[in-house]
Amino acid sequence: MLHDTDTRSRILDTARQLFHSRSYADVGVKEICDSASVQKGSFYHFFPSKRDLALAVIEDMAEDWAHGFVAEAFDRDLPPMERLDYMIDAAYYWQKAAKDLEGRMRGCLFGNLALEVSTRDEVLRAKLMAVFNKTRDRFRETMEEAMETGAVAPLDAKATADAMLAYLEGIILLAKTRNDPEVIRKLGPAIKTLRIERMN
Amino acid sequence: MLHDTDTRSRILDTARQLFHSRSYADVGVKEICDSASVQKGSFYHFFPSKRDLALAVIEDMAEDWAHGFVAEAFDRDLPPMERLDYMIDAAYYWQKAAKDLEGRMRGCLFGNLALEVSTRDEVLRAKLMAVFNKTRDRFRETMEEAMETGAVAPLDAKATADAMLAYLEGIILLAKTRNDPEVIRKLGPAIKTLRIERMN
Repeated sequence: MLHDTDTRSRILDTARQLFHSRSYADVGVKEICDSASVQKGSFYHFFPSKRDLALAVIEDMAEDWAHGFVAEAFDRDLPPMERLDYMIDAAYYWQKAAKDLEGRMRGCLFGNLALEVSTRDEVLRAKLMAVFNKTRDRFRETMEEAMETGAVAPLDAKATADAMLAYLEGIILLAKTRNDPEVIRKLGPAIKTLRIERMN
Repeated sequence: MLHDTDTRSRILDTARQLFHSRSYADVGVKEICDSASVQKGSFYHFFPSKRDLALAVIEDMAEDWAHGFVAEAFDRDLPPMERLDYMIDAAYYWQKAAKDLEGRMRGCLFGNLALEVSTRDEVLRAKLMAVFNKTRDRFRETMEEAMETGAVAPLDAKATADAMLAYLEGIILLAKTRNDPEVIRKLGPAIKTLRIERMN
């Protein structure tokens, strides 16, 4: 059983690295097996298809993310608007670390996959949408609390949270295209200026 | 010569459609040749490599874009802040038209390619960055004019323009992930709330 868990997580880790640093279509099952030193038969025992693997990679990354810097950023002990600064800082340092190591900014795995596969795979699209919606809900709670404490004037918290998530993905996209994590640091703080009013 | 021009533009149009509705890696030269009813020899006469084709597709799309709705949106006869509304409307109607036709929101070809190829192809990344920078400059002129006319308080026009472009790409990314162009219409107007202050 220990051996099984090891093999599965070795496949997962390898696929996550390769999908993130390149793309989903560009990385085949054979390359993943070779890099993870796993036989194809063993691969298909854990993941009947490449899509099943991608679902597990997204799940795995979303868990790490939710319990890692997203949990830290959206810590209820921080004043609401400071959580947004924390989130931007975390995205910046994380992208910068990868750039320093590999010379290339990888961007957000979820954003990368969303643009690559959304028109072609409804199952993966739905999974990525669910991950985005969960993150949006953290922004939403933050904006609701910011309204309660008077840190911001009344606004449409759900729509503003969507706007903030979209902006975060957008600045990571632009930073990746320029291969320059400083774009995140420069543009990031403006996330706090986004406002969508309530409809009457 | 007429025949040559026809063949080249048939390849370009086909590749643009296929790259946009799927992805760069997912579409091979053989499929493009088959769909465009062109021989492989003829393809390589015009485009020595798939990368050369991608460069031409980006150029072609950027030209259409610049002379099409970007030119209309950034019309100097419109008050500056109305140009931003026009740009959002144009993005919405364009994405909605494709969704109505194909059932899938394609997103922005430049954003899609940027996230897919930026870590793997410096030439394509540089080309996409140049397209983004050109669009950013239209936002920048708009914000400079908005400051001159007093429509907005003084701000860092270049950084705010980057933020606006990033936001536009971000809301298209989120809309594509939800396969719902209404996301663009709902979140779009908040582009006008983005502000990056001048540094002292």
